[in-house]
Amino acid sequence: MTELTRRTLLVGAGAAAISTPLATASQAAAPPAAKQAPGFYRYKVGDYELTQIADGARGVPITDAYVRNVSKEQALAAAEAAYMPKGMVTVPFNPVVINTGSKLVLIDTGFPPGAGPTIGLLQSNMAAAGIDSKAIDMVVLSHLHPDHINGLKTPTGALAFPNAEIKAPAVDWAFWMSDENMAKFQGNQLMKDYFDNTRKVLSDIAGKVTRYDWGKEVAPGITAIDTPGHTPGHTSFVVASGSGRLLVQSDVTNIPELFLRNPDWHVMYDFDPDKAAATRHRFYDMAAAEKSLIAGFHFAFPSLGHVEKDGTGYRLVPVAWNATL
Amino acid sequence: MTELTRRTLLVGAGAAAISTPLATASQAAAPPAAKQAPGFYRYKVGDYELTQIADGARGVPITDAYVRNVSKEQALAAAEAAYMPKGMVTVPFNPVVINTGSKLVLIDTGFPPGAGPTIGLLQSNMAAAGIDSKAIDMVVLSHLHPDHINGLKTPTGALAFPNAEIKAPAVDWAFWMSDENMAKFQGNQLMKDYFDNTRKVLSDIAGKVTRYDWGKEVAPGITAIDTPGHTPGHTSFVVASGSGRLLVQSDVTNIPELFLRNPDWHVMYDFDPDKAAATRHRFYDMAAAEKSLIAGFHFAFPSLGHVEKDGTGYRLVPVAWNATL
Repeated sequence: MTELTRRTLLVGAGAAAISTPLATASQAAAPPAAKQAPGFYRYKVGDYELTQIADGARGVPITDAYVRNVSKEQALAAAEAAYMPKGMVTVPFNPVVINTGSKLVLIDTGFPPGAGPTIGLLQSNMAAAGIDSKAIDMVVLSHLHPDHINGLKTPTGALAFPNAEIKAPAVDWAFWMSDENMAKFQGNQLMKDYFDNTRKVLSDIAGKVTRYDWGKEVAPGITAIDTPGHTPGHTSFVVASGSGRLLVQSDVTNIPELFLRNPDWHVMYDFDPDKAAATRHRFYDMAAAEKSLIAGFHFAFPSLGHVEKDGTGYRLVPVAWNATL
Repeated sequence: MTELTRRTLLVGAGAAAISTPLATASQAAAPPAAKQAPGFYRYKVGDYELTQIADGARGVPITDAYVRNVSKEQALAAAEAAYMPKGMVTVPFNPVVINTGSKLVLIDTGFPPGAGPTIGLLQSNMAAAGIDSKAIDMVVLSHLHPDHINGLKTPTGALAFPNAEIKAPAVDWAFWMSDENMAKFQGNQLMKDYFDNTRKVLSDIAGKVTRYDWGKEVAPGITAIDTPGHTPGHTSFVVASGSGRLLVQSDVTNIPELFLRNPDWHVMYDFDPDKAAATRHRFYDMAAAEKSLIAGFHFAFPSLGHVEKDGTGYRLVPVAWNATL
């Protein structure tokens, strides 16, 4: 392997630059396609057909506040170790569509089209997956943060899933729609933004929103599980069909590269960080013991994997992409 | 998290079965799509546009012979730890297309359409990616094993890339096309099959095949690197454009879950297992030190990641899917 040296890697470009064309073009150069593959991924859980849908991803600068209880340097080092862009984390957003055979259920929404250059892809990726937004029977919200609810509406404010029943966790609804709570958090910009956003998205459609309770099915075979801490009413789901099982964790952890590996780190978005950390340990200890398949809203697309204990934290083992169904 | 118990996971289906419908259907049930997303993934290396293409994956039973120098039980345990189907490994096949701006280059071919129920998808996934097989200027073969060359031809024996120059590593060509070598290995069924297959695929098009040497560019910015052992002439590639670098490793390792984690394990397909293991150590020690992006033919799609040292072996950190380009 004489050529495989540091020099090869570092000066390869120089060699390329001085090379002469190796063959005469027999045809016109192919233009770049300049377009990514559609971001959807299909799989089965028992008889149910599921589709992970990429809404896109966003770069978030690592500030002192990003992880509340560790230094910025520790957070930066963890991001660098995960090959993230310098000084940033990349946070993906991946809702899931579940076809139970009788109901077409979307869990969480991502952002509306055009919300940003690299987000708001849910509608186009659903269309690429052959899923008509008018055919969605139910949108189940895991909690009321913007990245999980804003896609309920189009950029003009119309309902993005016009025939869908909308279901919100009763505990989160009570918390975020309370004017008393809103008044209490006016001094906290992040919380103020959250309260403002719930009103902007949900107030005029409140009559269309059903509240659901933990421990019960929200749709056939889809049971709501209490995983509070990230928000007061944060909810995960067990999807059960035949002998198939899936945990839709929602935001039990934010990006696994930082917060699954370090379950006691407090990401700035967690409302009750100690409770969120306790939830993480209970959830992943159980999931690791059961070898459960987990869909994670903030896992890299296709956002499916198994979680294992690893030292004092956990690691994600992503599923191997299945090129056929 | 009262509901998140072993019982929830185990008896969830029972609960689903006895549940009553939660809402009256306002519309017809959506039929299952029953179709996977197209398996392609686009990314940039400097100014070059690259597309990983899934040819599919195949289940291979773990026999006593599968890993020559460890017990079947050890191999089975490693596969189980990677969540593979019981008693099997799943082996994916992922060629790459590189658009250099002047040349459209395919490295390795996978299988022809219809070669199996879950393989032979290169042509359909290339079409989904907007890449015309007639526009391919060059097919570069890393070595002459069936999964890397059989896709050169359609099921009827025609050239699958009719306008492409075909390039084969000179050392592998000399080895596999030698009748003397072929005679020597008639008693070894796997080797006999390999020799028979090279003749079936390559003999009648031998005049169209250019042989390339290690240490030189096979196409603008794509340099052939000697990584022998898996076959006598097994080759990897450095792709260099601007400050961008990619290592196209080909088969320096078979599936990383077993053979990157355990670089000294001898997969049955390695011709010279000691040399293959030595190549692995040198290749990955360098790649880990350089934090090189690596495309692996047998890595799970999109088959891109970084390799890190992990105890006596290595681990793969897959790239995070980029939903936009």
